[in-house]
Amino acid sequence: MKTILKITIFFICAIVSAQQEEFKKDSTKLRAIYTASLTNGKSYDWLNYLSNKIGARLAGSEGDKKAVIWGLSELNKLKLDSVWLQPVTVPHWVRGEKEEAYVQTQYGNFKAEICALGGSIATPAEGILAEVIEVQSLKEVEELGEKVKGKIVFYNRPMPADKINTFQAYGASGDQRYSGARIAGKFGAVGAIVRSLNLKMDNFPHTGAMSYGDNAENEKIPAAAISTNGAKMLSTLLEQKDKIQLKFFFKQSCQNLPQAISNNVIGEIKGSEYPNEIILVGGHLDSWDIGDGSHDDGAGIVQSMEVFRLYKELNIKPKRTLRVVLFANEENGLGGGKAYSALAEKNNENHIVALESDSGGFTPRGFGFTCNDANFKNIQDWKPLFEPYNIHLFVRGGGGSDIRLLKKENNVLLGLKPDSQRYFDYHHTSADKFDAVNKRELELGAATMTSIIYLFDKYGIK
Amino acid sequence: MKTILKITIFFICAIVSAQQEEFKKDSTKLRAIYTASLTNGKSYDWLNYLSNKIGARLAGSEGDKKAVIWGLSELNKLKLDSVWLQPVTVPHWVRGEKEEAYVQTQYGNFKAEICALGGSIATPAEGILAEVIEVQSLKEVEELGEKVKGKIVFYNRPMPADKINTFQAYGASGDQRYSGARIAGKFGAVGAIVRSLNLKMDNFPHTGAMSYGDNAENEKIPAAAISTNGAKMLSTLLEQKDKIQLKFFFKQSCQNLPQAISNNVIGEIKGSEYPNEIILVGGHLDSWDIGDGSHDDGAGIVQSMEVFRLYKELNIKPKRTLRVVLFANEENGLGGGKAYSALAEKNNENHIVALESDSGGFTPRGFGFTCNDANFKNIQDWKPLFEPYNIHLFVRGGGGSDIRLLKKENNVLLGLKPDSQRYFDYHHTSADKFDAVNKRELELGAATMTSIIYLFDKYGIK
Repeated sequence: MKTILKITIFFICAIVSAQQEEFKKDSTKLRAIYTASLTNGKSYDWLNYLSNKIGARLAGSEGDKKAVIWGLSELNKLKLDSVWLQPVTVPHWVRGEKEEAYVQTQYGNFKAEICALGGSIATPAEGILAEVIEVQSLKEVEELGEKVKGKIVFYNRPMPADKINTFQAYGASGDQRYSGARIAGKFGAVGAIVRSLNLKMDNFPHTGAMSYGDNAENEKIPAAAISTNGAKMLSTLLEQKDKIQLKFFFKQSCQNLPQAISNNVIGEIKGSEYPNEIILVGGHLDSWDIGDGSHDDGAGIVQSMEVFRLYKELNIKPKRTLRVVLFANEENGLGGGKAYSALAEKNNENHIVALESDSGGFTPRGFGFTCNDANFKNIQDWKPLFEPYNIHLFVRGGGGSDIRLLKKENNVLLGLKPDSQRYFDYHHTSADKFDAVNKRELELGAATMTSIIYLFDKYGIK
Repeated sequence: MKTILKITIFFICAIVSAQQEEFKKDSTKLRAIYTASLTNGKSYDWLNYLSNKIGARLAGSEGDKKAVIWGLSELNKLKLDSVWLQPVTVPHWVRGEKEEAYVQTQYGNFKAEICALGGSIATPAEGILAEVIEVQSLKEVEELGEKVKGKIVFYNRPMPADKINTFQAYGASGDQRYSGARIAGKFGAVGAIVRSLNLKMDNFPHTGAMSYGDNAENEKIPAAAISTNGAKMLSTLLEQKDKIQLKFFFKQSCQNLPQAISNNVIGEIKGSEYPNEIILVGGHLDSWDIGDGSHDDGAGIVQSMEVFRLYKELNIKPKRTLRVVLFANEENGLGGGKAYSALAEKNNENHIVALESDSGGFTPRGFGFTCNDANFKNIQDWKPLFEPYNIHLFVRGGGGSDIRLLKKENNVLLGLKPDSQRYFDYHHTSADKFDAVNKRELELGAATMTSIIYLFDKYGIK
């Protein structure tokens, strides 16, 4: 018995000691990754080019084409094992002339800042002038029914400020933007004006995707976002409706052109031991047409590229195949993600892990994981490695729009979780500019992504 | 035996259940605090006034006086049990005319952005033109000794970018600013130019306190900070010294006026059960004279005031005495903190807890605590209450310059730890403006401070 006990204790000690040794090695590697990203990183320079030399890059636009060529060229410079393009058919919506809007009253007209929602139709060339009915929800429009006929429906439910995670606040109000025009159009409204998805009071209208669903042609009505300050003004004036005769005017000339071709830009380093196990890292290369898409999702693009640059700089040879994907057309159609996953399915590729960064280039706080219990438990063991970098959030739920379709029963999807407080100050607006990104915050995000990819590559999944 | 066991189990269950009940109550209270701060907070409006209507408020300046009156008036509006001023004698340093500086070469002059360091003497009216010697440390100057005679010493050691906590990077390079002129002056240098304490490459020079120590009058030399871009330019030109004949010119007219009077602004709510146990919350009301001190430390001031407003809004009656202190003269002398602690000592006051917010109005990450083991262990038990708010850092070491002297063996000093990545983009510069503060980040900080004060008041210390 005594001998067996001794042997058991010996083995337990050996295992614990080996684990401690690996922890030490991993700690050292993570420190090297963070140091390289913070002192010699390229993510910020890349973002400077993408934002300031290329700028806005909505699917189908000239900016989109330039971004694809730039992405291809930069990935080539990294000397990955292979770099290629995957063509993607994408919508081609254009905004046209700058929108105009004002509140018309007997006391004069009050200008409002609006922007057409992505996918919306134009107003007639002379614009639309109509009475306004303010609502807080889609349901309220359904209840009003025919009463909205001939009117502009003004959706004014704010994002709830008490949510700590601003993406939850976004989710709580986002239906107005996506479906507001569809519902109002069904009941004969002539236009939909939607409060911008913004927690701040300012003059920036926030664009974003909307859909007419299966509405008939005559049920399709123009839809625009109004800035939060504009929404407040309009609502305040509407409160005085017994004293103020009020109509809203808006004019926009956006249109859907024939579909265009864009590309997913893809590069990979072949795995030395398990080349058929693919670990994907990506963001989306397209952006909305106002601003230059620095946070959404220029940050995610350059961070994904930086993962691979860091692998090269630090001479880390992955055991599994690492693939970077700069997805096309996330914003108005998800064409890139759909095309990528369809081809992966067809080629029977095995994506064991897919990481997306598409929540802005702010200080990283952790990751959200969509995976089974065994993997989640496994991942929790890595938390202490990240504590020196103030990375604490290892939570369930997460991934990204572009990688969603890659989900299999046993693989792991994850999304970088940066601090979310400032994201909706910039999201889908002309304020989403390079200067809104802090170099160190961006670099910490890239290092955090590289670190978790390093661990997934080293240890695999359950 | 069986009965004893049953009784023991019963009591353990009762204790656990009571603890769970308290945890639930505390969770509910914290949720109410965060919701009130995020949806009905006043911190941002206060900061708007302090930054945009009062602005810069260096000790002894008109802005400083206006800020004291404003603080007094706003605390009075909160209907605390008492509000008063404590006079403080403060230095009165003024910058004078805008500084001028350039690098003189045979190819022309290259302008540099500088600003005098706080407490520095002026240059002669015609400025100083001298050869430059670049160094990385105080020690290097001591080794150079007489070789610096007649020259301008240029301290150019950058803040180390690989530190995750930027305050550590600040600490690693700060000696150049504080003591650079003192050391260089001892060896006959004619001026000291110090690389700005900034992790970003930009054109903002960063002021801050310096000291001549016990240098004789003829060893006091003018000292200025140069922007990081300026430092890079100067250093690059110096590298070409075999081709480029280079001198540096700078001119500044700052001076120390006779001491002035400022005030600590103080308010309190008397404790209902333990009025002699004081829990202090504060920041410093003064700021440097460039920018408007929104992050340093307007944010800490309005957050401290918001703690008390939230107590009133939520109708929380503290058991212990809560005291808010808007400290005078932190930046160039610590006069407010010294005067406050001296009087507290004299009056034999018992400060069981003191919390300072003086690290910027960014997303709060947690607190640093200076306290004994028993208290630190106790505080750790509160961590789960803060997790829903993404507050994870409960670490040792912390407090603040103004409260440091209140340390006793068994009390607790703590400092709010906001995310530190952007702080040194603004610190002590003309870029430290209201627009650099995000409303929600500021409000989350105020709620986090209120929450921990609530727990300290409810449970006391060990």
